[in-house]
Amino acid sequence: MQQKNTWLLPDGIEEVLPAEAKHLENLRRKLLDVFSCWGYSLVITPMIDYLDSLLTGSGHDLDLQTFKLTDQLSGEMLGIRADMTPQVARIDAHNLNNCAPARLCYVGTVLHTLGDPLEKTRSPMQIGAELYGHEGRESDVEVISLMLEMLAMSGLKNVHLDLGHVGIYRALSEQAELTDADEAALFDALQRKARPEIRELIEGLALDEQLKTMLLRLPELNGGYETLEQARVVFADAGDAVKRALADLQAIADQLAAAFPDLPLSFDLAELRGYRYHTGVVFAAFVPSVGREIARGGRYDNIGEVFGRARPATGFSADLKLLSVLSKDIIPLERPEIIFAPATDNRELAEKIRDLRAEGRTVIRELPGQTGNYKELGYTSILEKKNTDWVVKAIA
Amino acid sequence: MQQKNTWLLPDGIEEVLPAEAKHLENLRRKLLDVFSCWGYSLVITPMIDYLDSLLTGSGHDLDLQTFKLTDQLSGEMLGIRADMTPQVARIDAHNLNNCAPARLCYVGTVLHTLGDPLEKTRSPMQIGAELYGHEGRESDVEVISLMLEMLAMSGLKNVHLDLGHVGIYRALSEQAELTDADEAALFDALQRKARPEIRELIEGLALDEQLKTMLLRLPELNGGYETLEQARVVFADAGDAVKRALADLQAIADQLAAAFPDLPLSFDLAELRGYRYHTGVVFAAFVPSVGREIARGGRYDNIGEVFGRARPATGFSADLKLLSVLSKDIIPLERPEIIFAPATDNRELAEKIRDLRAEGRTVIRELPGQTGNYKELGYTSILEKKNTDWVVKAIA
Repeated sequence: MQQKNTWLLPDGIEEVLPAEAKHLENLRRKLLDVFSCWGYSLVITPMIDYLDSLLTGSGHDLDLQTFKLTDQLSGEMLGIRADMTPQVARIDAHNLNNCAPARLCYVGTVLHTLGDPLEKTRSPMQIGAELYGHEGRESDVEVISLMLEMLAMSGLKNVHLDLGHVGIYRALSEQAELTDADEAALFDALQRKARPEIRELIEGLALDEQLKTMLLRLPELNGGYETLEQARVVFADAGDAVKRALADLQAIADQLAAAFPDLPLSFDLAELRGYRYHTGVVFAAFVPSVGREIARGGRYDNIGEVFGRARPATGFSADLKLLSVLSKDIIPLERPEIIFAPATDNRELAEKIRDLRAEGRTVIRELPGQTGNYKELGYTSILEKKNTDWVVKAIA
Repeated sequence: MQQKNTWLLPDGIEEVLPAEAKHLENLRRKLLDVFSCWGYSLVITPMIDYLDSLLTGSGHDLDLQTFKLTDQLSGEMLGIRADMTPQVARIDAHNLNNCAPARLCYVGTVLHTLGDPLEKTRSPMQIGAELYGHEGRESDVEVISLMLEMLAMSGLKNVHLDLGHVGIYRALSEQAELTDADEAALFDALQRKARPEIRELIEGLALDEQLKTMLLRLPELNGGYETLEQARVVFADAGDAVKRALADLQAIADQLAAAFPDLPLSFDLAELRGYRYHTGVVFAAFVPSVGREIARGGRYDNIGEVFGRARPATGFSADLKLLSVLSKDIIPLERPEIIFAPATDNRELAEKIRDLRAEGRTVIRELPGQTGNYKELGYTSILEKKNTDWVVKAIA
C-alpha cells in the first residue's frame, strides 16, 4: 500500500486559498446583499440532521448522495446535508408562522458522497433563495428574476435560460395510472434522456395509444418558443393539469421576455434531471463556457407537509464556488493595499496603526527577525517616520 | 418506539433563524474585516478530510469528538472537521510558500460527536486567526491583541484574560522521564484538574523529591501577578525550558499590560484543558456571564511538520455563534427598513424598485392574492403613486 501524503485531499474535496477565498467572500456578501434587497432573509441550516428529515420527499438520488453517520448520543441515523432546500422548507413550515409569503435565502457547504459525473466537486457551496406561500406564476417569475440578478451580479454574460414543467410528466403518468415502479423507472430514464429505454418502457405499458403517443413525444419537445406551440398540438387531448402547465409556461415566458428582452429562452418539457422534489415549473441557467447548468430551481409545492405545514414553494440554487471561479475571470482581483509597519516599539506608531485599521486599511506589523522581501509579500506601502509623524509611503 | 417529529433536530445541532442569522452575518463580516485589517487572509478549509490529516498531532480527545465516515470513492476513512486549526496549518505548510510570517483566518462550522459538558452545542461556528513562521513573543502578543480586538468588536465588556504555558508541564514531564502512558495519564488528570488523582499519580512515580514537589505544586500555581513570583521560587531548580517559559509569560504579560492597562490578567500554570496540540504560551478569554472561556488559543509550534514543513505557530479561535448570542444583548438589532411595493404591473414602478434595490434598500414586491398584515410582516414603508411618481411613504 502506498503511503498517503498527509496534505492530499479526498477527490472532489477542495480547500480555498487566500486570493480565491477573498474573491469568493466578496461575491458571497454581494449576493446575500442582493437577496436581502429583494426581501430574502438569511437562515443557517444545520450541517448534519436526522436522515429522515434530510431525505423527506427528495427521492432516491439524494439518498445515494448523502453521507450517513450514527449519532453516538441518540443512536439515530444522521446525514450530512447534500441539499439545503428541504432544511429551509422545514424552517418555513415549522419555525416561521407567517401565513403571508416568506422569503428565505441561504449559503453553505453541502457534501455529496459520489458527486455528479459532470461536477468535479463533491463539496459545492450551495447558495440559493426560496419563496414560500404563493402559488401563482408571479412568485416563479420573481425567483427566476432574482436568479438572473444573482448571475448578473456575478458578472456572468450570455446567460441562457431553460424552462420546463415537471407537472406535465407527472400529470401524464397519473393519467396513465402507472404503478409506482413504472413511474420511477420512466422518470429515471427521462432524467437520463435515454431515448431507446424510454421508448421500450412506454411500449411495454398497457396504455391507450393516445397517452402512449403523448408520453413518447414528450422527450422531443425541446427548443425555442415553437416548442410550446408543438406541445399544445401534442397535448390537445391531455387533461387539464397538462394544459394548465403549458399555460403557466407560456405566461412565465412572456413575463420574462418583457422584463429581460435580451435573454435567450428555451424549453425542454421532458427535463427532469436534478428536479428531485419539484412539482411545477422548473428552470436552469447556462453559460457557454460551462457544460452544465450553473443555477437551477423550480416549484416544489407542499414539501413542508411532512414538517407540519404544506405551502406552495419556489426557489433556486447554485454553487457559489463555481460562480466565484467563473466571475474571477470577469471581475479581476484588484491588488489590495497592504501597509507594512516596522516592529519599532513606539506609542505614536501603535496609535497610527490603530487609526489606519479603524479606517479599514490593512496594516501588517513587522515581527522582530522576520525575513522575506516586501514585494514578494505583496506589501504596497510602508509606514515611515517623517519628523514627528508616521506617514504611509508607497513602495516604488 | 415513539414516532420522531420530523422537525426535531439532533441534540446540540441548531438552525439559525432570520433575526439571529442577520445579526450573526453582520458580526461575521465585521470580524473578518478586522482580521483583514490586521493582515490575516481568509482561507476556507474542507468540511471533510482524510481522518489522518484531521487528527494529526491533535490527541485523543479530538479523535473522540470527530465524526467518522467511509469514503465510497476511495474506501478511506474520512472525518468531519472538529477543529479547523490543523487544516489551516496544512495550508501554511503545504500550499503557501512563504518563508516570511503568514497570517491566516477562517470561519466555519465544525462538528463534535459528543460536545463538551460545558458546551450546549455540538456544531459551533469556529472563527479564528493563526500566525505562522515566527517564534518570538511578539507574535503571541499580536494574536492575543487581535483576539481581544475581536471580543471588543463583538461588544463584549469585562473581558478577563487567563495566561498559561503548556511548556512548563511538558518540560517537567520530560525531565522526569515519564513513560508515554504516565505522561498521558497525568496530562489527563491535570486537564480535569482532578487534584487527588494528580497527587496519587505523582506519588506513585519513581522520581526524585525535588521534581515530585515541582509537579505537585503545579496545580496550585494560579492567580494574579504574584503567581509568576511564586512559580520562580517553586521552579528555582528546574531546567532551562521551564525558566524560559516563565520569562515568556512575564514578558507577554508586561506587553499586554502596557497595551491594555484595564485588562484583568490571571495565570494558571497547570491549565491544559483544550490545549490539544499546544506547545507554549496558552491563553483564554472569559466574560462574567459565561461559565467557560469564550475564546482561546496559544502557541503550537511545528504542527505543520507532518504536512511537510515545521513552522512556529500561534493563534486563537472562538465560537461565532456564541459571540453572536452574547453580542446580541449588547448591540441591539435595529429594525430594518422594508419597503412594500404593490403587485401592480407598471413599468415606472418596476424601475423605481430596481433603483431602490440598487441603493441597497430592501423592497418586497406584493404577490397577487397574498394575505397578511403589513405591520406583522415588519414592513416599515410602502411605495405609493403620487401624481406620476412612485414614492416611499413610511407606515404610521
